[in-house]
Amino acid sequence: MSFHETTVQAFLPILGSLSGLLTKAEAYCAAKKIQPEVLLGARLYPDMLPLSRQVQLACDFSTKACARLTKSELPSVPDTEKTFEELRQRLAKTSDYIKRFTPAQFEGAESRDVTFPAGPDRTMTLNGLQFLTRVAFPNFYFHAATTHGILRHNGVEIGKRDFLGVA
Amino acid sequence: MSFHETTVQAFLPILGSLSGLLTKAEAYCAAKKIQPEVLLGARLYPDMLPLSRQVQLACDFSTKACARLTKSELPSVPDTEKTFEELRQRLAKTSDYIKRFTPAQFEGAESRDVTFPAGPDRTMTLNGLQFLTRVAFPNFYFHAATTHGILRHNGVEIGKRDFLGVA
Repeated sequence: MSFHETTVQAFLPILGSLSGLLTKAEAYCAAKKIQPEVLLGARLYPDMLPLSRQVQLACDFSTKACARLTKSELPSVPDTEKTFEELRQRLAKTSDYIKRFTPAQFEGAESRDVTFPAGPDRTMTLNGLQFLTRVAFPNFYFHAATTHGILRHNGVEIGKRDFLGVA
Repeated sequence: MSFHETTVQAFLPILGSLSGLLTKAEAYCAAKKIQPEVLLGARLYPDMLPLSRQVQLACDFSTKACARLTKSELPSVPDTEKTFEELRQRLAKTSDYIKRFTPAQFEGAESRDVTFPAGPDRTMTLNGLQFLTRVAFPNFYFHAATTHGILRHNGVEIGKRDFLGVA
């Protein structure tokens, strides 16, 4: 099986879905006269990260997973987005970045070691398959599904089908 | 790369983590004098599925993914769990079921067609790799992360590290 295809086909549809969720969230703000920054700053609990950070982190984990698995330079992307539109642009740029990887770059990546930060002062090393299944996927989907959860909790009319991109 | 390993290594750690989340949730109920059934019935929004169903669905999607990919009989598991302990048993049985699959059963699964229900009155067919990355993984992680989100929103002291199983 293709490790490239597995990685890329998992990330791309969800990045697209998140963009759709943000469009519905923005329309909801307009209809309900909610300040966009209030919803962008919404959290499921006071010490949890807000909506905008969840989107940035979904971008970050998918971007860095592809870079680490292919031994590419880690792109440095500042987290500056302040509006729904800017977050959609971040998602679109992330998708564009991921689409540029070729199957050849992923050749052998499943068994190659990946060393990554695992806390403020330590690193961890796993092979590529372990890194993808135990680190990259759960982190990526965690922030993507939490984005959905925050919007759902605030009344935006979305459901799992929007998350899956089949709505 | 091993399609068997990719599938199984993604599901198992999260099923284990969910069990740990439920243990913390149960202790939180005891400490705060919360009726367990209140937290088991908690939702992020009134028309969303409650905590217990989120756990059952994470079990269901991982179980059925392995069965469909290997052309095994779909196990019929009734959703009868009413306590934290029963849900942990469901998670443990799901892990046991998934662990019994062998690499040989997954041989060729990535390119074999999988036909699955996609709504009340229609089915969809994708190859195994597409099914895993576009259907099984996003559904599985959606319900797993929503379990975390519901508990987090209700004040249970957990974080992403508990979800990742590295806490």
